[in-house]
Amino acid sequence: MDSLNIRHHFPIFKEHSDMIYFDNAATTQKPKYVIDAISNFYTHHNFNVHRSVYTDAGETTEMFEQSRKNIVSFINASSAKEIVFSAGTTDSINLIANGYYAKHIKAGDEIVVSIAEHHSNLLPWQKIAKNNGATLKFIPLNEDANLDLNAAKQIISDKTKLVAVTAVSNVLGNINPIDQLTTLAHEHGADILVDGAQAAPELPIDVQETPIDWLAFSGHKMMAPTGIGVLYGKQDLLENMDSPRVGGEMIESVSTTDYKVKDIPYRLEAGTPNIEGVIGLDAAISYLKELKMTNVQAQCEKLGQYLYDQLNALDGVSVYGPTKRQTGIVSFNVDNIHPHDAATFLDSKNIDVRAGQHCAEPLTHKLGVNATLRASLYIYNTIEECNRLVDCINEMKEFFNGSK
Amino acid sequence: MDSLNIRHHFPIFKEHSDMIYFDNAATTQKPKYVIDAISNFYTHHNFNVHRSVYTDAGETTEMFEQSRKNIVSFINASSAKEIVFSAGTTDSINLIANGYYAKHIKAGDEIVVSIAEHHSNLLPWQKIAKNNGATLKFIPLNEDANLDLNAAKQIISDKTKLVAVTAVSNVLGNINPIDQLTTLAHEHGADILVDGAQAAPELPIDVQETPIDWLAFSGHKMMAPTGIGVLYGKQDLLENMDSPRVGGEMIESVSTTDYKVKDIPYRLEAGTPNIEGVIGLDAAISYLKELKMTNVQAQCEKLGQYLYDQLNALDGVSVYGPTKRQTGIVSFNVDNIHPHDAATFLDSKNIDVRAGQHCAEPLTHKLGVNATLRASLYIYNTIEECNRLVDCINEMKEFFNGSK
Repeated sequence: MDSLNIRHHFPIFKEHSDMIYFDNAATTQKPKYVIDAISNFYTHHNFNVHRSVYTDAGETTEMFEQSRKNIVSFINASSAKEIVFSAGTTDSINLIANGYYAKHIKAGDEIVVSIAEHHSNLLPWQKIAKNNGATLKFIPLNEDANLDLNAAKQIISDKTKLVAVTAVSNVLGNINPIDQLTTLAHEHGADILVDGAQAAPELPIDVQETPIDWLAFSGHKMMAPTGIGVLYGKQDLLENMDSPRVGGEMIESVSTTDYKVKDIPYRLEAGTPNIEGVIGLDAAISYLKELKMTNVQAQCEKLGQYLYDQLNALDGVSVYGPTKRQTGIVSFNVDNIHPHDAATFLDSKNIDVRAGQHCAEPLTHKLGVNATLRASLYIYNTIEECNRLVDCINEMKEFFNGSK
Repeated sequence: MDSLNIRHHFPIFKEHSDMIYFDNAATTQKPKYVIDAISNFYTHHNFNVHRSVYTDAGETTEMFEQSRKNIVSFINASSAKEIVFSAGTTDSINLIANGYYAKHIKAGDEIVVSIAEHHSNLLPWQKIAKNNGATLKFIPLNEDANLDLNAAKQIISDKTKLVAVTAVSNVLGNINPIDQLTTLAHEHGADILVDGAQAAPELPIDVQETPIDWLAFSGHKMMAPTGIGVLYGKQDLLENMDSPRVGGEMIESVSTTDYKVKDIPYRLEAGTPNIEGVIGLDAAISYLKELKMTNVQAQCEKLGQYLYDQLNALDGVSVYGPTKRQTGIVSFNVDNIHPHDAATFLDSKNIDVRAGQHCAEPLTHKLGVNATLRASLYIYNTIEECNRLVDCINEMKEFFNGSK
């Protein structure tokens, strides 16, 4: 895969040719193909879905449902019934927590997460645990900063009702052993929910080969718009899930006193959905399929490893996470320079990196720091950009510390 | 206001010059100004908000918060703290129901709605009433098909904790007496929530002049994208509202066992928001301000009255709702022709109207029918389009019934 060639697909890089965008774990840029799909929608297909008999609206409904089918094949779901559109990963996980586990978790039950979860896959479970009298348990990291599978084997037990883990840490960039965790969870009769926010943009996903129960991901981290996400659930779980949002288009019939809901997935999608978000996600997924997810993964891994190695070779730079890189996410700190100051310095060089706790405060504390810098690379980033970051870090060290 | 002139702002009407789009209560078309704002966002400002120190993201955050301020002045809220971004009207009302009334409604309390509510402002209250042991009461319509204010005075009592009504019926098109209902609710110590989905696109709104407690509306019905909506709440109510969605960017700090939330409105906006939706809504609101809401209202009322009068003059056509029209929404039926057949016939003439219950099944039953046709007009519709609809209805009567 040739990043330089791919960059031509992205209008923002043409307009801002000097910008080095290394904040892809926060949100990705959009290829012209996606932007055009959205403009085309507004110019030709801006009608509401599922509601009307007229042809224009029927065509839009078909495009909308085509996007759902595109997602079915993207993650190899069993059927379109298993794909629910949400507002994003956070929304998906909250829908699952409030719609399913709020009524299925009992006092004394245990929910298991990893210490490296994003807050969106931590706070909903803290809340359920507190409300329902359950216990939240944490899988730690091993000495190589990967999820400690041996510890997981001790922690996951017959008391466990749910294992909720991210597939890729948004700070450390490592891939968690979802295969083994799925087997482990199922051996104990527990469900497994995977936060796919960072995985869906970078890795091939197959929910039948690795039979996870729930998957949540966002459009905007995989070149689609913000405000659109996916909630995948196994059919029998979705069928036993309440509709936390109720309203129009999710019902069969309504009287003054009661309502009868539709079948899944529609009863979980109350109100007018984010239609252009769904259309944009369809385009982004088609674009990713065209590139092939194995190529996308190889490219992100290559860039991540290159940047890791370069940063690791610098004096006075601490890089976090495993030495063997698997994604484009690299978190680090520079001695004696606060990450916010560092990010501000790099900003002056037109390099966009993130500084902070990256919505994973327990992990940041575990790393023994208050904050880190994070460079998160995606398919359109280049080796030259990595080299430029390294040069700027050297310059920064001289600026702040008087030494390279 | 000149509809013909305004039409030039809408790319879809240029591309589809033969289309008569009369389904604006379902969703409105987008002016070039809004589409360009979104394209411009993708090409120059596609960064995540509230998270980063780098300049690019800071500029996007500023645009995002500027949109919130634009909404503050659009509805004359007291402060930006009172404006929460949601996924749409349905999401807003569900957030209020789950985040506030789920814990504030007790057994024996009463919730009052009108018989003309959209399901999105009915089902959440059916659910709360059922879960909390409260009673749901309905304000009927008077003989002129307006909300029966005398009945409301009997129904709203000291037992009432919430009056939840739409400002504009999405079927009958009449404006409800929100002023008097607000006074009535407050006299009895009840809160009032207004479903503004149909009102925000057509009417001036002033939440201080008419001191309602809650307001919900959607972007896509007022020329902005789908997937974005607004939840307005009085500051003291929002401060006592739980965060039904929890996750990133709504917290001050997180430990393994607990989390401390930010101040309003941020703690009610977990996860990456619909950023381009917010940017698009900002553009749509600026466009509406430029047109002036008093002009918008006058134009919709004029078109609605014209179409009503034309349809009412036809033999064998029943038009529903008050004779004095206040908005662009007109629901009707043609004798001996099922509304779905009628909509299909009109579709063959390239006229997009809605057929069905319009997500207001109790009202449809009250009207004594199973379904209606609905033509909902907006600022870019024309008298000529109304005439064309009338001609096609005459043609349709001949086609189905053998008589004009």
